[in-house]
Amino acid sequence: MANIHQVAKHAGVSVATVSRVLNGQDTVTPKTRIKVEAAIKQFNYEPSMLGRNLRNSESRLLLVLIPKISNPFYSEIINGIETTAIKNGYNIILCETDSKPERENIYFDLVRNKMTDGIISMDPAVNVESLTKLAESYSIIQCSEYVVDSGIPYVTIDNEEAAYKAVKHLLKIGHSKIALMNSDERYLYARQRELGYRKALKEQNIVVNEDWIYYTQELGFENGQQAMRKILMQDEKPTAVFAVSDLLAIGALKELNSRGLKVPEEMALIGFDKIEFSNMTQPTLTTVAQPMYKMGTVAANMLINKIKGEYVDNVILDHELVIRESTLG
Amino acid sequence: MANIHQVAKHAGVSVATVSRVLNGQDTVTPKTRIKVEAAIKQFNYEPSMLGRNLRNSESRLLLVLIPKISNPFYSEIINGIETTAIKNGYNIILCETDSKPERENIYFDLVRNKMTDGIISMDPAVNVESLTKLAESYSIIQCSEYVVDSGIPYVTIDNEEAAYKAVKHLLKIGHSKIALMNSDERYLYARQRELGYRKALKEQNIVVNEDWIYYTQELGFENGQQAMRKILMQDEKPTAVFAVSDLLAIGALKELNSRGLKVPEEMALIGFDKIEFSNMTQPTLTTVAQPMYKMGTVAANMLINKIKGEYVDNVILDHELVIRESTLG
Repeated sequence: MANIHQVAKHAGVSVATVSRVLNGQDTVTPKTRIKVEAAIKQFNYEPSMLGRNLRNSESRLLLVLIPKISNPFYSEIINGIETTAIKNGYNIILCETDSKPERENIYFDLVRNKMTDGIISMDPAVNVESLTKLAESYSIIQCSEYVVDSGIPYVTIDNEEAAYKAVKHLLKIGHSKIALMNSDERYLYARQRELGYRKALKEQNIVVNEDWIYYTQELGFENGQQAMRKILMQDEKPTAVFAVSDLLAIGALKELNSRGLKVPEEMALIGFDKIEFSNMTQPTLTTVAQPMYKMGTVAANMLINKIKGEYVDNVILDHELVIRESTLG
Repeated sequence: MANIHQVAKHAGVSVATVSRVLNGQDTVTPKTRIKVEAAIKQFNYEPSMLGRNLRNSESRLLLVLIPKISNPFYSEIINGIETTAIKNGYNIILCETDSKPERENIYFDLVRNKMTDGIISMDPAVNVESLTKLAESYSIIQCSEYVVDSGIPYVTIDNEEAAYKAVKHLLKIGHSKIALMNSDERYLYARQRELGYRKALKEQNIVVNEDWIYYTQELGFENGQQAMRKILMQDEKPTAVFAVSDLLAIGALKELNSRGLKVPEEMALIGFDKIEFSNMTQPTLTTVAQPMYKMGTVAANMLINKIKGEYVDNVILDHELVIRESTLG
């Protein structure tokens, strides 16, 4: 009935080292390997997964729930989660929920049945009730998006403040007609970023033109293109757009480029996230950098600590406005 | 000891419908739901995952192995796999192998321990020996990249022919100095696309300038940028570049744009895959379209048929050269 912790303790090494020996990685010295193998033998430790599940509820797998695998924002976070997980002797499996509760529920079963040791949820449309209920018995961390007052620990950024800073920058370089390209209001980050947008305008006594606030159902290039088309159809047009996602901003930029409208001269543009592609566009995109990789490492460490039974607090990470060509005068 | 197939047969519905009832989806009519629930009861069918694993070796989960989650090429394929899986009452879990055999091996355990019913492998650097051995006992399909003569069914495109057509297009519009921006030679597709490049040049009696063939270790924007920098450092420069991935081509374009070099006037450019980004750049990118979504649906259907014990043949899908601004005169 031994588990990996007992083996590690007996061999005088970390759990990660035991895992490395089990996985046949060659980063372990022969001396350590011999010690670990002796401990495994002595405790009759059986690392086969099904064995593990039934015997000691330990799979060394972490489940990561993402809404859309196609958004590069998630790739960087996953990179951070994965690196930290592996360092600690865990591996991750990814499940795309597509923001559908019935799919989430199937993946929750992987924890209920102890095939994974815990969950990092990044789905902004997660079913609050199921997640809260599951968190009573299992280790769960929320990453980036979170359910307020759920009691489930989260790591995120200050979305309101980040949006506020972005719009302040547009005001500072002389814009007063600023549109908001938002995603769906059912997402917390969308509501928070809208608050920041409104706050920045209000501070300058600018009345928000409600016709300049656009909501998109999804975060894709075509959603940004469509929203920009609607903006350009207005009688009174804004001179700048703050988009809550780089994908929307890049779609908007495509629409402007293909009409021969100059960015930033005829329309300034700010995105959000700082995905790699935001630096490949012409002009390059001013954007709010989220510390995606770090967010992943923090989320993974939080989950691993939670699995160990430690108390885990919420974490708010820093963000940064990265000024590039799309808002340069 | 009933399985989902018996329940479906008895209720006179598809396996997908039984799955929908089990998952509580509301797309099932009340009448059908009652029939299915009666059959579940009669057969004492137990859909709990751990129960399923131990009793009838059926998890209704498919494992998808991808090398890099950050390459959008895979997102579209996964989209196709997922849609088809769900239609057939399956869900998928994704594992990023990072082309590391020790990681693959952990994920292979998910099949060995019957936590998933089969594998779709998209990793071009997969460990051939392990995969072939695993395929003797479990259902495996290879998607996009494959191991020649492994006997494991695959779905892919004709990479040599696709590259040949791309280079032929460059020749046709007047280029004779054509560089190849390739990925790593250990990948089959890289070797196949190089063959196509060489074939097209040879047909026109153009001697291949070996200094114009670049290999990158990874497929990222920065790899394309670096390769383009090297190209621009040559004494004799090519007038066109064929890149084996859109990510490389977009990085190359970034380098050209930031130096103020005009595409296609000073350097024509062709990518490969037709990821969504390739239409967001300025100029838009000529590229070889792979039918990614279809490749995913075909791979999923092949795997599901294989799980059912049916004979599954290899599939070669069509590709298409999409001519856009980066090669327009």
